Amino acid sequence: MNAPALREQFPVLRHLAYLNAGTDGPLPRAAVQAATEELQREAEEGRAGRHFERRGELNRSLRGAYASLLGCAAEDLALTTCTTEGLAVVLGGLQLARGEEILTSDEEHPGLLGALAAERDLRGVTVRTAPWSELPAAVGPRTRLVAVSHVSWQTGRFAPTAELADTGVPVLLDGAQGVGAVPTDVHALRCAAYAGAGQKWLCGPDGTGLLYVAPELREQLAVARRGYANLADPGAGLDAGLHADARRFDTLSLGAETVACALGAFQVLERAGWARVHERARLLAAELAERLAAHGREVVGRQTGRGQPSHTAASGSGARPGGVGEDPFIGHRGTLVTFASPDPPAERERLAAQGIVLRDIPGRSWLRASVGAWNDQSDLDRLLDALER
Amino acid sequence: MNAPALREQFPVLRHLAYLNAGTDGPLPRAAVQAATEELQREAEEGRAGRHFERRGELNRSLRGAYASLLGCAAEDLALTTCTTEGLAVVLGGLQLARGEEILTSDEEHPGLLGALAAERDLRGVTVRTAPWSELPAAVGPRTRLVAVSHVSWQTGRFAPTAELADTGVPVLLDGAQGVGAVPTDVHALRCAAYAGAGQKWLCGPDGTGLLYVAPELREQLAVARRGYANLADPGAGLDAGLHADARRFDTLSLGAETVACALGAFQVLERAGWARVHERARLLAAELAERLAAHGREVVGRQTGRGQPSHTAASGSGARPGGVGEDPFIGHRGTLVTFASPDPPAERERLAAQGIVLRDIPGRSWLRASVGAWNDQSDLDRLLDALER
Repeated sequence: MNAPALREQFPVLRHLAYLNAGTDGPLPRAAVQAATEELQREAEEGRAGRHFERRGELNRSLRGAYASLLGCAAEDLALTTCTTEGLAVVLGGLQLARGEEILTSDEEHPGLLGALAAERDLRGVTVRTAPWSELPAAVGPRTRLVAVSHVSWQTGRFAPTAELADTGVPVLLDGAQGVGAVPTDVHALRCAAYAGAGQKWLCGPDGTGLLYVAPELREQLAVARRGYANLADPGAGLDAGLHADARRFDTLSLGAETVACALGAFQVLERAGWARVHERARLLAAELAERLAAHGREVVGRQTGRGQPSHTAASGSGARPGGVGEDPFIGHRGTLVTFASPDPPAERERLAAQGIVLRDIPGRSWLRASVGAWNDQSDLDRLLDALER
Repeated sequence: MNAPALREQFPVLRHLAYLNAGTDGPLPRAAVQAATEELQREAEEGRAGRHFERRGELNRSLRGAYASLLGCAAEDLALTTCTTEGLAVVLGGLQLARGEEILTSDEEHPGLLGALAAERDLRGVTVRTAPWSELPAAVGPRTRLVAVSHVSWQTGRFAPTAELADTGVPVLLDGAQGVGAVPTDVHALRCAAYAGAGQKWLCGPDGTGLLYVAPELREQLAVARRGYANLADPGAGLDAGLHADARRFDTLSLGAETVACALGAFQVLERAGWARVHERARLLAAELAERLAAHGREVVGRQTGRGQPSHTAASGSGARPGGVGEDPFIGHRGTLVTFASPDPPAERERLAAQGIVLRDIPGRSWLRASVGAWNDQSDLDRLLDALER
């Protein structure tokens, strides 16, 4: 992998130590170019017959690209505007009854929690929260679904997907910090559905995302929103049927320029090679974790020695009792490096002023660095130098 | 109004007689420029703190712009990805019970029909269809909502909004062919909700739209999809509350470049003056209708003489019994000019080959020209010349 050549494609990296892909990835030049060309075509040629063929082509290409990364068929992959939309499509589509239960963890993102709260409020579904590491054991007789992050947005930990799948209850993975960052073969993950974001680790535009739905789940999900994108025969009006494949779950409308932008970004990473993108990011993140620890910063969930977790956790005022520090370590290090900070918002601001971009985790004494294949040692150096000061 | 200056801002009009805003409007140069600048900023500066402030600013600006055009407060206006999304938010949000009824017309678009079919299939709601002109009389004791086009996508007719409002049943207007094309003061229309498209008569990008919800309806609508955009305090997790205003209905994620593009397009028309934009389009459309009639083409719903409708309708094989020809004329001429064609798809193709862009109405012997303030007599001349051949 030609790491400098990959890095060169992201303009932001010329001047910032951009470690924020867990929020929004760096946008490559080719993505901007692809979107601009689509918009210029639309403005020049208008938006009639060929425009809709073009939109169809772009959607097919992006669907195939996303599917290839998840190891699923394109027919099982829907295009969305964000992770939350995909989660809501699955949660709402299940039409669970009052008193049926969804199990989730204590480390979830507002994007999943909002979708869960809607099911609770609208249908009387019980949403039960278990500590991250106790999820498999917490599955009970009324549990109809486990809805959990593939990779925790707070700690970077991986969900115990094998143990969860062994329970036999369908698992919906929130892949916001998964797809693009780490390998995401949905068959290996044994999930019933997987929702991901286009704008984070896939470096696409805001307003893009993906949803995998396992073929056996497809027909069980009611489809509440139905437009041209979803209907096999829209001309049939009230009697129109849904597409037989996952297009039935597609978001209602995605502009050609948005899809072209997402596809342009995807191809930059695909050309570098996904396996190498994942491996480079993992190694850089591990390096950052080690260097932070060597500099005296506690790193959440850091693995040391022969695969033993350090069990270190932030001990600041924001760390909850029963938090990561006391949990057995689950999974392995991905691309998120979460570390202790005495005053996360203030330290984040101070770093930003020096051109180092990362985020804090609200309610925790933690900062989180997102490390991608586009980063290099110079970004880590800048962060570590600035932290020392 | 400087019509040539307005026209000059739409590149497609240099070479095409583009009469297709009812599908997708012409995209102005300034909209392309605005989107491109946003994307370049994102690529250069990254997408962290200031990026989210910028997205907030852009959303506020677009919300305010749309609201000003609808004559409502910005707090009553939600941003969506398309008309159908807005319709689905309202229809789904009502959570009607089995056997309750939604009344609609026989002239609706698949975008509304798909949303209605979902309510029928998922909740057992009765969807009753009445002829367009008989809607007010068709409101019955089980009717909880009337869901109808503001302007018919097929004939260009206006819904009898005053008579519908007089029934006291809430009215949801599908404004896909309304907002931007004709005056749309939601208070004058006396509707409970109004869903519109950004990419048609507002000349914005695909993937944009708007939803007005009357303040008295707001709290009655359940919100099934809840993300950062909708939550007042997303950090509260499962206990997070919705925004007090219509942001609770916002689509989950709209990219800054998409919003900037929509806003750029809006401002082109706003600078020309909405009253003048509407009036010029209306006059040009009326002129086209007259010239088509003079050329021997039947024009659907054409008004003649002292406000009397011509009662002409396409008599081709696609015209249904009980169709427009036999209905009393309702409303007045807007910006859609629908006229008879012996073979609409073939004639549409023949016209497209000559650089004249309009659409056919499936299942009818009709072609439909969409006339905007950006068009001029040369566009009408090209169409009429080509039709004569």
